[in-house]
Amino acid sequence: MSKSNDPARVASRDWSSSELREALASAAEWVLAYREGVESRPVFPNVEPGEIQARLGAEPPARPDPFDRVLADFSEDIVPGLTHWNHPGFMAYFASCARGPSVAAELLIAAVGVNAMLWRTSPAATEVELVAVDWLRQALGLPADFRGVILDTASTSTFTALLAARERAGDDVRRRGLFDAPALTVYTSEQSHSSIDKAAMAAGLGLASVRRVAVDERFRMRPEALSEGIDADLAAGARPSFVCATVGTTSTASADPVRAIADVVRRHDDLWLHVDAAYAGSAALAPELRDPFDGWELADSIVVNPHKWMGTSLDCSVLFFRDPTPFRASLALTPAYLESEEAPATNLMDFGLSLGRRFRGLKLWTLFRCVGTDALADTFRGHVRMAADAADRLTSSGRFELAAPVSFSTICVRAVGAGEPDELDAGNRDILRRVNEGDSVFLSHTELDGRYTLRLSVGSAHTEPRHVESAVEALIRAADDLARTEAVAVGTE
Amino acid sequence: MSKSNDPARVASRDWSSSELREALASAAEWVLAYREGVESRPVFPNVEPGEIQARLGAEPPARPDPFDRVLADFSEDIVPGLTHWNHPGFMAYFASCARGPSVAAELLIAAVGVNAMLWRTSPAATEVELVAVDWLRQALGLPADFRGVILDTASTSTFTALLAARERAGDDVRRRGLFDAPALTVYTSEQSHSSIDKAAMAAGLGLASVRRVAVDERFRMRPEALSEGIDADLAAGARPSFVCATVGTTSTASADPVRAIADVVRRHDDLWLHVDAAYAGSAALAPELRDPFDGWELADSIVVNPHKWMGTSLDCSVLFFRDPTPFRASLALTPAYLESEEAPATNLMDFGLSLGRRFRGLKLWTLFRCVGTDALADTFRGHVRMAADAADRLTSSGRFELAAPVSFSTICVRAVGAGEPDELDAGNRDILRRVNEGDSVFLSHTELDGRYTLRLSVGSAHTEPRHVESAVEALIRAADDLARTEAVAVGTE
Repeated sequence: MSKSNDPARVASRDWSSSELREALASAAEWVLAYREGVESRPVFPNVEPGEIQARLGAEPPARPDPFDRVLADFSEDIVPGLTHWNHPGFMAYFASCARGPSVAAELLIAAVGVNAMLWRTSPAATEVELVAVDWLRQALGLPADFRGVILDTASTSTFTALLAARERAGDDVRRRGLFDAPALTVYTSEQSHSSIDKAAMAAGLGLASVRRVAVDERFRMRPEALSEGIDADLAAGARPSFVCATVGTTSTASADPVRAIADVVRRHDDLWLHVDAAYAGSAALAPELRDPFDGWELADSIVVNPHKWMGTSLDCSVLFFRDPTPFRASLALTPAYLESEEAPATNLMDFGLSLGRRFRGLKLWTLFRCVGTDALADTFRGHVRMAADAADRLTSSGRFELAAPVSFSTICVRAVGAGEPDELDAGNRDILRRVNEGDSVFLSHTELDGRYTLRLSVGSAHTEPRHVESAVEALIRAADDLARTEAVAVGTE
Repeated sequence: MSKSNDPARVASRDWSSSELREALASAAEWVLAYREGVESRPVFPNVEPGEIQARLGAEPPARPDPFDRVLADFSEDIVPGLTHWNHPGFMAYFASCARGPSVAAELLIAAVGVNAMLWRTSPAATEVELVAVDWLRQALGLPADFRGVILDTASTSTFTALLAARERAGDDVRRRGLFDAPALTVYTSEQSHSSIDKAAMAAGLGLASVRRVAVDERFRMRPEALSEGIDADLAAGARPSFVCATVGTTSTASADPVRAIADVVRRHDDLWLHVDAAYAGSAALAPELRDPFDGWELADSIVVNPHKWMGTSLDCSVLFFRDPTPFRASLALTPAYLESEEAPATNLMDFGLSLGRRFRGLKLWTLFRCVGTDALADTFRGHVRMAADAADRLTSSGRFELAAPVSFSTICVRAVGAGEPDELDAGNRDILRRVNEGDSVFLSHTELDGRYTLRLSVGSAHTEPRHVESAVEALIRAADDLARTEAVAVGTE
């Protein structure tokens, strides 16, 4: 047998303790400087497609570089090309913030590097996940018969719920596939996330199976339209199987009336109710923000993403469900090499497509321990207040009108003016461009009632009232500037 | 607007710089002590299901604890319940090792916390991923027309490839679903991973669509059996759509004859060839280990998991493919709020189910930079030698016989003896239990030809020849002990 001090063998080993020590110290220093200085960086980078790639070298290196050299290249060549999701001026999309405790937890997760596929493959990783998910359940006020699992994203969680619903419909899709099944149909509102479409495509139901149910003037699903849609499909021989209500829709953060939707769903056997609360779900930690969730406790499954508003860092999506049976029926398989004797143990790989599973429970657990539910709830209250204040400032400026009621910490506005709709759309697009070019805030847009709409969502633990005020001022300034030009008539004057 | 120094607001903010500094310093110290001391821990913990959960408290904490307190609880209550995948004696399943550079990279990934769903949502995160994946392609010797994307696990990568194949079959499954489609069929060997079954279930094809093709005496798919299976399905009106060859099967690490399989596949229109090289693929970095991969360059898609043998830390699965069109056709959807103007940019969310995507490219890039392809290849060579040496020692002891040819760094053995098959199975089970109870090595088992089989796979950068020697000695000692008892007759004496 070769000697263990063979030079080639030594080179192929992992870093020594001192190399790891120096690298972690350098990385930690870099992280601290980055987090302290992120506010002075442009939120959205000024780069062209392909520019970063061109800096990084076409071929893999044969020989190693010291970590400090690699870190310097990261800092100089890569970081200037990042969109800074942890910048306090990031108010685009929905925030995905990485609070300090989750950053520290990710270091621990990587270092122990365990796999939580089976209880046996790392018992504590499974059990910490079960504990952290149950803490979240309690904090959100969900009943004790909900259990949950951590998946990567809401797209995956919703897909996994759809597979369970597809199985519970009773056609033995697990074994026979969908080839001889009746046409299963899916219901969600016009304002729901594209992940419902994607889940239907991936699950083999197809886009044509998805019914986009009409919304009311506040962008909430109309339960009577849902009921009519289901009846029409039944009459046509389809099998309604999955209803996805949303609390916190992607564009306006509107909340579907879950209780009324649940009443419709309960009139039909084996129709599954899923609630997409990926963004807004966290807000249920604050009891006074719970009204929009009324009825979600009646769902078969719920998705809440702690990596959004709560700040566990990407990725950490919790799928809650009541009955594990249809999940196991749709996805569980235990190959011989993974058979084990711990019958009462939970094997979390049975509740998702992925076999390998990171120790994500640790970051959710660490966040709860290091922040506590009181301060988490305060975060959400604070963000909701900031959004309400921003909406007041924008509308009272006379330059903007609300495009939707303010919901949670998300506002949708449009600059007002006397022009044609197309001109106003162009003006609003120009305002967004100007605001984002200012580098200190990053907003996104959406389309509502066919109109280009500006969108501001507060959701990062790094965002303070002054940052939201800056965003408001930038919006008003851009609208003022535009109103002064002749090209586009925006503004009330 | 509320003041930013409102106490409740301050409590709801993220850690201060000094809190983060102290936490990262404590976490790094813990990580260093853990990595230095992991060898003295039992690889597999001595805990009962529910034991860790009971230690962690039933309710979420309302108030925060300082990080050092949380870290102490992690260390005392949680870590003793982990299975230590980075222990040098971990030789179960396939290794998933977290090399130092990937641990440091995970800290950076968490701290910047960006989302690589669209180019726009963090241009450098997309471009680093493209560069790192292309470096891997070059290092593996794959042709330049392969591109790739990082997904979480091989289960997801194979599922994603199956969706592309399902779409390319031409039934417009994207829109219409599978309800009116001809029965699509999937082919893989009896020795393939359960993830192919799981992918077929999730994709709506069902377990009945999966043909488990017979293997030869070396556990390799028989191409003529594949060909006959396809012909029989065609004759029965099914539509063969997906063939998954494996290089490095789960039990024995056998390699299917990919070139001969590709020849069969090419005789049929729109039959997709996928190669599952999740574990073994990394070995192609060493040119002299490439023979078993002959023909994989003819595949439509290939999965290689750098989080296994290469050591990027979980999760990092690379799905290579030639033609992006069927992937986009099966999964791409761009909602209005994500529409952007960077037409030439790659939006990686179009190549997977998940919308949110971690900055995984950074850990693969960092690993290449800090280790280099020469030392990576040496790692694989070293592990292959260690496995070959172990197999020699075990068979020459007279106590064990090979249950399969040694392939890559994985060996399958059985203790030999004069008893009935059931008695020998019981004896081998007992040997595994004894070896694993010794705490310094963790092996797993499998079933081959209906017989209980012991399995040892070398794949961690922390494993040195002395650790494999210890495992070999523990196996021989356990077989010796057992041979001395009257209860089970194992051994040649």
